Amino acid sequence: MKLFAQTFFLAALFIAGMSITDQKKTRVVFFGDSITQQGVEPGGYIAKMKEDLQKKGVADKYELIGAGISGNKVYDLYLRLDNDVLMKLPDVVVIWIGVNDVWHKALLGTGTDADKFEKFYTAIIKKLQAKNIKIFLTTPAAIGEKTDNTNQQDGDLNKYSNIIRRLATNSNCSLVDLRKDFLSYNLKNNTDNKESGILTTPINSYLSATPFFVSLLSF
Amino acid sequence: MKLFAQTFFLAALFIAGMSITDQKKTRVVFFGDSITQQGVEPGGYIAKMKEDLQKKGVADKYELIGAGISGNKVYDLYLRLDNDVLMKLPDVVVIWIGVNDVWHKALLGTGTDADKFEKFYTAIIKKLQAKNIKIFLTTPAAIGEKTDNTNQQDGDLNKYSNIIRRLATNSNCSLVDLRKDFLSYNLKNNTDNKESGILTTPINSYLSATPFFVSLLSF
Amino acid sequence: MKLFAQTFFLAALFIAGMSITDQKKTRVVFFGDSITQQGVEPGGYIAKMKEDLQKKGVADKYELIGAGISGNKVYDLYLRLDNDVLMKLPDVVVIWIGVNDVWHKALLGTGTDADKFEKFYTAIIKKLQAKNIKIFLTTPAAIGEKTDNTNQQDGDLNKYSNIIRRLATNSNCSLVDLRKDFLSYNLKNNTDNKESGILTTPINSYLSATPFFVSLLSF
Amino acid sequence: MKLFAQTFFLAALFIAGMSITDQKKTRVVFFGDSITQQGVEPGGYIAKMKEDLQKKGVADKYELIGAGISGNKVYDLYLRLDNDVLMKLPDVVVIWIGVNDVWHKALLGTGTDADKFEKFYTAIIKKLQAKNIKIFLTTPAAIGEKTDNTNQQDGDLNKYSNIIRRLATNSNCSLVDLRKDFLSYNLKNNTDNKESGILTTPINSYLSATPFFVSLLSF
Repeated sequence: MKLFAQTFFLAALFIAGMSITDQKKTRVVFFGDSITQQGVEPGGYIAKMKEDLQKKGVADKYELIGAGISGNKVYDLYLRLDNDVLMKLPDVVVIWIGVNDVWHKALLGTGTDADKFEKFYTAIIKKLQAKNIKIFLTTPAAIGEKTDNTNQQDGDLNKYSNIIRRLATNSNCSLVDLRKDFLSYNLKNNTDNKESGILTTPINSYLSATPFFVSLLSF
Repeated sequence: MKLFAQTFFLAALFIAGMSITDQKKTRVVFFGDSITQQGVEPGGYIAKMKEDLQKKGVADKYELIGAGISGNKVYDLYLRLDNDVLMKLPDVVVIWIGVNDVWHKALLGTGTDADKFEKFYTAIIKKLQAKNIKIFLTTPAAIGEKTDNTNQQDGDLNKYSNIIRRLATNSNCSLVDLRKDFLSYNLKNNTDNKESGILTTPINSYLSATPFFVSLLSF
Repeated sequence: MKLFAQTFFLAALFIAGMSITDQKKTRVVFFGDSITQQGVEPGGYIAKMKEDLQKKGVADKYELIGAGISGNKVYDLYLRLDNDVLMKLPDVVVIWIGVNDVWHKALLGTGTDADKFEKFYTAIIKKLQAKNIKIFLTTPAAIGEKTDNTNQQDGDLNKYSNIIRRLATNSNCSLVDLRKDFLSYNLKNNTDNKESGILTTPINSYLSATPFFVSLLSF
Repeated sequence: MKLFAQTFFLAALFIAGMSITDQKKTRVVFFGDSITQQGVEPGGYIAKMKEDLQKKGVADKYELIGAGISGNKVYDLYLRLDNDVLMKLPDVVVIWIGVNDVWHKALLGTGTDADKFEKFYTAIIKKLQAKNIKIFLTTPAAIGEKTDNTNQQDGDLNKYSNIIRRLATNSNCSLVDLRKDFLSYNLKNNTDNKESGILTTPINSYLSATPFFVSLLSF
């Protein structure tokens, strides 16, 4: 089992732990971009979590709902928070956003300024916490898998991940630090310093709006 | 008197017309970017409007308030709408935004997607109209004054101005179409097809975050 | 017959006229980006010109050679001028470049400054004319087909086309003004102001590095 | 004495060593961007090197010439190589380029693709070596001084520095690895992880086309 799956496995356990005594199902909404949009497809990360829960015999205690849209940035999440998340009355929301906020700077000229990224992210957290919803924050994993800090967006991904880490601490949210996990995994397994192919598919540079990590499908 | 001043002169008259019978002062908030931030300075466009109102002997009927911040895009306005506008309980709000939404694509990689521009603009209008506030929408005037459609951002400025024009029609807001007025003025007065110097100062390309139209100061 | 085909038809006639008394074949190299790379494929614009020459019964008098590479900008042409053009000892070179010089500003952050575009273009012309090669310059046709000057790159495409027109005049090169021809054609035929589908295929924004005009295949 | 000065001090010694028996002066051209343009000004790095040579009593053996132009990228150097370098018949050329090739991606949309950066750099080296000119290659020092890999362009600066390091090895050029030296220096001296102020002046983001390191003036 790979690190990435383990990470979410732990998250799943955590979710399990918090709701073990509930009568009703725990409703979890995954809120993000294309990776989450793909996550509900066969082999996707949300589909995998459903299988994990089934294997543990607790599938009937959880409802996992995907709310990912390709190309989304943090303010897209903000704009559709009411309709796509709050109206579903979730107990838990997992937010996984940031790759496009960084990548679209070079790709379309419409990335998100770091300070605005934090402001909209904060606004989302506040609206969720006002409803007593449990929140997981996820750092953007990677745009390119080179391990020597030469991926074009490495600096910015580190910066925006730091913002998310700080938000998690200051807002008492749980953190799934995929950026850290991906880097650690690649330092061990990407010894040839490849651009892609270890945890992600070859990124056809500007050919895809968000990195679609097919390898997530094959854990 | 130049065209631009006339435009706002008409706007001022319009404002005057709507409130002539009011007992209390009509409070007008100008909501925008660096041009509006400069607008309250001596010679700025808001300062000039105050002078106009004084000349007409109706200065005591109006309170003109600047709420401009350099570098602002539409979602910056959205984020500070409550604190910087609604809390001031305005009767009228003049929104002048869009230059940075377009320009920051090339300048910083953090411009605003056209569809998000419209969404945030719409959200601002709705919140203002829910308070029965009269709204003026202003199109982004220019980034470069060439008259043969060769300024780099001409296509986008036209596109975003069309969005604003449509919003004005669909939302029953008044329109101050500065983009149209600037182009008309330049077609007559910029016969040498100069980059700048007619209605704007020389734009030092990336040296300034928003075009600071000093000529606005000298009507 | 559509306008675009007519334009090249005239060019073909021109080529024909200049070499009608030659004994040897007139060798024409088409030097450009993905449109030219596709041009030699069945239905491509170079393939169509070959058919035209055959219909006129003069196919044995011409050798049409494609030298297009997807994603190329003017300095890519400069870097491969010796190997891909001069070594083929052409009589005529048709240069069609510029879309990526403009588009890659927004797409990758690696477009070409206007002044450098002119410098490298000039250097190419000088090296070709030093070998007494006849040169045709072609303006970049379009990135988006909207007819109201609201395509994002319209301003820049007009600017870079003006550079090419000036170079043609000053360097005594022939001009194939496809930008002008495309606009004229669209003003008549794109009355719904569509984004694409008249002379170009739907441009999937950042999904393709250069606009691949499939409609060129169907004249 | 700071590290940076030491680096060039060693370079100066190296230059001294190679020409100690020459009768004529050793002519050194510094070829680069705004940092080099400023380098000849009082307190600039070239001016400092002249002082070093004077202190060692060997000033009459060297002629140091600045050939820096603000905003230059690698292909600007290529375009003016003949006029600004070769015509001066130098014995040694110090090339310091790359910051704008990276930075202008975000700043103007006209950065340089990594593969083209290498091609033009290689072309420059070949033309210089064909004249038996001794070459020093310098890596781009920094855009931002944060030491935790969160400066926006860190990934790209590392990537382009790796290209320069590889070129130095493969082309038998000397390397002045300022990127490495700056990082090492900052890891020791920038313990608060500041954005600027240690080896560089505050970078006003897009307010300057190239980072103008005033601190270079004060060693």
